[in-house]
Amino acid sequence: MLMNNDAAQKPLDLMADYLAADMAAVNDLITERMASEHAPRIPEVTAHLVGAGGKRLRPMLTLAAARMCGYGGPFHVHLAATVEFIHTATLLHDDVVDESAQRRGRPTANLLWDNKSSVLVGDYLFARSFQLMTEPGSMRVMQILSNAAATIAEGEVLQLTAAQNLATDEAVYLQVVRGKTAALFSAATEVGGVIADAPEGHVKALFAYGDALGIAFQIVDDLLDYRGDAQATGKNIGDDFRERKLTLPVIKAVAKANAEQRSFWVRTIEKGRQEDGDLEHALALMHQHGTLDATKTDARKWAEMAKNALAPLPDHDLKTMLGDLADFVVSRIS
Amino acid sequence: MLMNNDAAQKPLDLMADYLAADMAAVNDLITERMASEHAPRIPEVTAHLVGAGGKRLRPMLTLAAARMCGYGGPFHVHLAATVEFIHTATLLHDDVVDESAQRRGRPTANLLWDNKSSVLVGDYLFARSFQLMTEPGSMRVMQILSNAAATIAEGEVLQLTAAQNLATDEAVYLQVVRGKTAALFSAATEVGGVIADAPEGHVKALFAYGDALGIAFQIVDDLLDYRGDAQATGKNIGDDFRERKLTLPVIKAVAKANAEQRSFWVRTIEKGRQEDGDLEHALALMHQHGTLDATKTDARKWAEMAKNALAPLPDHDLKTMLGDLADFVVSRIS
Repeated sequence: MLMNNDAAQKPLDLMADYLAADMAAVNDLITERMASEHAPRIPEVTAHLVGAGGKRLRPMLTLAAARMCGYGGPFHVHLAATVEFIHTATLLHDDVVDESAQRRGRPTANLLWDNKSSVLVGDYLFARSFQLMTEPGSMRVMQILSNAAATIAEGEVLQLTAAQNLATDEAVYLQVVRGKTAALFSAATEVGGVIADAPEGHVKALFAYGDALGIAFQIVDDLLDYRGDAQATGKNIGDDFRERKLTLPVIKAVAKANAEQRSFWVRTIEKGRQEDGDLEHALALMHQHGTLDATKTDARKWAEMAKNALAPLPDHDLKTMLGDLADFVVSRIS
Repeated sequence: MLMNNDAAQKPLDLMADYLAADMAAVNDLITERMASEHAPRIPEVTAHLVGAGGKRLRPMLTLAAARMCGYGGPFHVHLAATVEFIHTATLLHDDVVDESAQRRGRPTANLLWDNKSSVLVGDYLFARSFQLMTEPGSMRVMQILSNAAATIAEGEVLQLTAAQNLATDEAVYLQVVRGKTAALFSAATEVGGVIADAPEGHVKALFAYGDALGIAFQIVDDLLDYRGDAQATGKNIGDDFRERKLTLPVIKAVAKANAEQRSFWVRTIEKGRQEDGDLEHALALMHQHGTLDATKTDARKWAEMAKNALAPLPDHDLKTMLGDLADFVVSRIS
């Protein structure tokens, strides 16, 4: 497992090396803009989260898209920082909504400070992201990113109402995932192309790549919630089950459930009356119906679609790396 | 008291009448943009809040500023709706942060639905406000409004850390108030002037008016928390005391406290060990030191500054109404 991870990290590391100067500029800009002269609580909270060292996958997508489209200006850095701020704000609010205790292997901000700080510092980062996104002066970029922010929030609300509802099917799941995850991936790659003034066909290809990559990424995340270990993923196993979220492995298991199994899902997910051993039984049902494997197959399909989406783009080292990145995303479940 | 209110509401009603067509357009736009095809929870929550019928003071400021500067285009409506969306998003998040039970005389959204819905629907409205503010295509407008959003969040975080801290003085209070309240008032008036392409001196005057009006408004609000009745204000008396907020009447009382009184404030505000009768004792101390009257004087001073700020602007019915509005804001405490 560890060897697998080591080998699979290579495309992401290669990309980080290739974009090292740009990423350093993004990190500097993030540090500069998350400061607050008057409210020291703000950088405390954000530094905790940013310092935990996410992989900066989303800003890297923006940088890669801009560079492979030949961009030579300074503003891809602002857009990459915008994307990371939106992402970080979303994480802060997610942890309040999910009442999470762990994020990236560390205690969450809402646990270390309080929900209030997470809500308000998240708002601050949202506002900062909007300040940043105005700086390149591109109307289209602002529309793409503000649309993405609205789609993310809509996806989160949809997830809230879809949770605990066994009628949630794969179509609704895909809508939630497109909102809460893929919207920011596709906006990240699309604005990279737009800022570089790339031809429309290339911009569309970058959008389609980000969309499919984001969906693959989220399916893998949802699968790991039932398969991974807390140390590797920084998440607790079965969090989604305890939060009664209808993710793909469960949706597929519910679709194949007999009457007795269905009443198990009604009790644990719809009614939320969970007992010791329920998570284990849920896992057994998923294995019985092969829904973890079927979910893996779906994730791979989306990763493949992400790679294929890159076809219209001209040859470039970064194009190769983006293709490899799609493989990397699903390698976590290989 | 009631007569007083009736007489005092006239300037606001006059302005609403004068701007009736514009306000109808704002209301239509708000209804249109708060909809969500996929997540019906969103309009449920926002309709509850918007339906409670706030006075739409902030969007009216934008409309008035634009019209008195001779604006004839359509985009003051978008900016007014932007301002109201930012305000509504802030209210939703405030109620989570304050754990409030009542807003505008009705149960809060976090009580009717849950904190999750309030956080996420607030995020949705923030994102919607950013979509709206891009539509006029004015970089300066976007900068003003995104700066305001950041200043609001910063003010809220500062309030969070300043609460429960007896070292909070009038300067910190003013900074919090400028952030959490006045920043949106001044942005609302300033963008009205900017969209109308008004001369720089007029834009500055509009900013200064909104800033002073917002400060007067918040001081009045903080005073009413100790003086009003729940039916008139839609708030519970003593909420700020229970939440251990250092507002102006308390800051002034702490500054004049003898040793015994100081230990009362330390126990109730810093340590939060409140007992029955403490609110009444706090009120007695404020009366003893005349801090409620001193706070009223401050509010009137800021309202006067707001009126004076309008001086550079040419004569206009709306200029008169904005001046009267400043009087109206402090008339709630006359």
